[in-house]
Amino acid sequence: MADTRTEINSLGEFGLIQRINKKIKTNLPDTITGIGDDSAVIDLGDEFGLLSTDILLEGVHFDLTFFPLKHLGYKAIAINVSDIAAMNGTPRQVTVAIALSNRFSVEAVDELYEGIHAACKDFNVDLVGGDTTSSRSGLLISVSVFGRVKKDKITYRHGARPNDLLCVTGDLGGAYMGLQLLEREKQVFMANPQMQPELEGKDYVIQRQLRPEARMDVIYELAEAGVLPTSMIDLSDGLASDLLHICAQSGVGAIVFEEKLPIDEQTYIAATELNLGPVTAALNGGEDYELLFTVPQVSYDLIKNNPKISFIGYITDKKNEVLLHTNADNRIPITAQGWNREN
Amino acid sequence: MADTRTEINSLGEFGLIQRINKKIKTNLPDTITGIGDDSAVIDLGDEFGLLSTDILLEGVHFDLTFFPLKHLGYKAIAINVSDIAAMNGTPRQVTVAIALSNRFSVEAVDELYEGIHAACKDFNVDLVGGDTTSSRSGLLISVSVFGRVKKDKITYRHGARPNDLLCVTGDLGGAYMGLQLLEREKQVFMANPQMQPELEGKDYVIQRQLRPEARMDVIYELAEAGVLPTSMIDLSDGLASDLLHICAQSGVGAIVFEEKLPIDEQTYIAATELNLGPVTAALNGGEDYELLFTVPQVSYDLIKNNPKISFIGYITDKKNEVLLHTNADNRIPITAQGWNREN
Repeated sequence: MADTRTEINSLGEFGLIQRINKKIKTNLPDTITGIGDDSAVIDLGDEFGLLSTDILLEGVHFDLTFFPLKHLGYKAIAINVSDIAAMNGTPRQVTVAIALSNRFSVEAVDELYEGIHAACKDFNVDLVGGDTTSSRSGLLISVSVFGRVKKDKITYRHGARPNDLLCVTGDLGGAYMGLQLLEREKQVFMANPQMQPELEGKDYVIQRQLRPEARMDVIYELAEAGVLPTSMIDLSDGLASDLLHICAQSGVGAIVFEEKLPIDEQTYIAATELNLGPVTAALNGGEDYELLFTVPQVSYDLIKNNPKISFIGYITDKKNEVLLHTNADNRIPITAQGWNREN
Repeated sequence: MADTRTEINSLGEFGLIQRINKKIKTNLPDTITGIGDDSAVIDLGDEFGLLSTDILLEGVHFDLTFFPLKHLGYKAIAINVSDIAAMNGTPRQVTVAIALSNRFSVEAVDELYEGIHAACKDFNVDLVGGDTTSSRSGLLISVSVFGRVKKDKITYRHGARPNDLLCVTGDLGGAYMGLQLLEREKQVFMANPQMQPELEGKDYVIQRQLRPEARMDVIYELAEAGVLPTSMIDLSDGLASDLLHICAQSGVGAIVFEEKLPIDEQTYIAATELNLGPVTAALNGGEDYELLFTVPQVSYDLIKNNPKISFIGYITDKKNEVLLHTNADNRIPITAQGWNREN
């Protein structure tokens, strides 16, 4: 080890990733895109191959006191499939590596794999490889996915153009509110195990957290409608952060209309109950795994009747100027940390 | 969770993997091989794609008290490349996911990636994706690799035929002896931190443990010599266990000659010092990451002068009868747990 010691905290997770990525260079002619998009892109001749990986750790990404193993298995596959969807690709094969401690029973492993198999069936992918090992502490799941896309259909983060329309699938902020509710109930339960959880009427946001879907349905519907997005990303970190990625990589800006943000009624109620504000949840809540994409204005008529897709704003030529147009007709900068009426 | 609880220990790691794999079925026409070989095989049209994944956990697969981070990064890539080599393929792209606790400094992460980059350079692969996250306990590295192979050049575990020659690259048992020595020195050091480690003249076996190479060199040399193995596997679990895989999947048996086993002098000395027996180390020591393969007898002249390849036995038509022909002209069954003169 070197003599100097720099704490990771001094860089932050984002700073550390930037430091790692800065040193990565690709050399092979068939490596089209390395790090920096939802998936790596590999030239296969007639089409592109897509490769992505995601890891889920107990205590960091999930809490088994409220996360059923079956849902966890499903989610591990879904979030990887979502990375292929974001390239406008089709997922084909996945590998699953798990490490688990003796705390888990054989039945628990069966449950986890039930969810994995259910997701493989839903998204039409084959589980083709893996690694099973013991762990000294808790559970971890590492999934890699291989997918494909026709060369003229691939969508990168960097293709958004001024005047393109900004669209999002489904609704926003629900997964984050679901997590907040589950964590609140866990605290209540730990303080008094006799208390019944107060989750009635909150099934939708809880499901958003525990069993996210990859939006392959929308990928197929866009293709059927003849619409090719100019840019796309999946919403893992939240609309604000992921829109900033699109704008930075495309060299553009964006206006988002507050009133157009699709927010479910349960997200409104939960956000109010927890004093968080539904718009904040929609902008900053992560893990919705919806798709954020841009289309040329001429495509609007082809998707406007699709109830799964909302038009939420448009792209401007103001590089990295990403603004929320509020209901009070103010324009407020959106930052990766969210937005702030005081700004 | 179900009401019954079956402990994982009651199945064992091998039993658990069998249970998981039994439920896995593949459905897509482009999935040629799923679980059961060194890599999954994907039909890309003109050629096959290869996909494999391996995970390394602190405290399970490595001990940072004696494992330098740079070597660890190198090893994480090498063992994945080795899975592609075992299919007679060429590795192209890798993804690396790491999780680490605050115990690690930024400089430590730099060292780890130095090793990763060195291996990517040595094996001519591009690092194209990853995931960096925090961990509550220790370090873990999950690598996935994508490779390619011409359709008529792929080698599976299941292609060995009676009378084929059994060959192995490099030498055997060294990585295991290196690990035993490092663990012994750790115990000595923990009992008395003033003691100097006694590792003089043991550099080769220690390097075998800390910095294994994937034998891509031999893959290129076989191709150059015009030799196509009929079956191949990489030696991660040890010769005995991996030869049994080839025999079971090919429906054949094998005779291995004790006197032909390539064992380095340092492995002999270390094995003697530790009362383990060099042949036991060669048969059962894991992590050498050499290649075990079979070739038709007609290929012998084409490889006999390659100093990296040893002829160690031959394939028989006696299904699953895998025997060690000892120097005393006895024939003793080789089992996954090794072999036993008392058998």
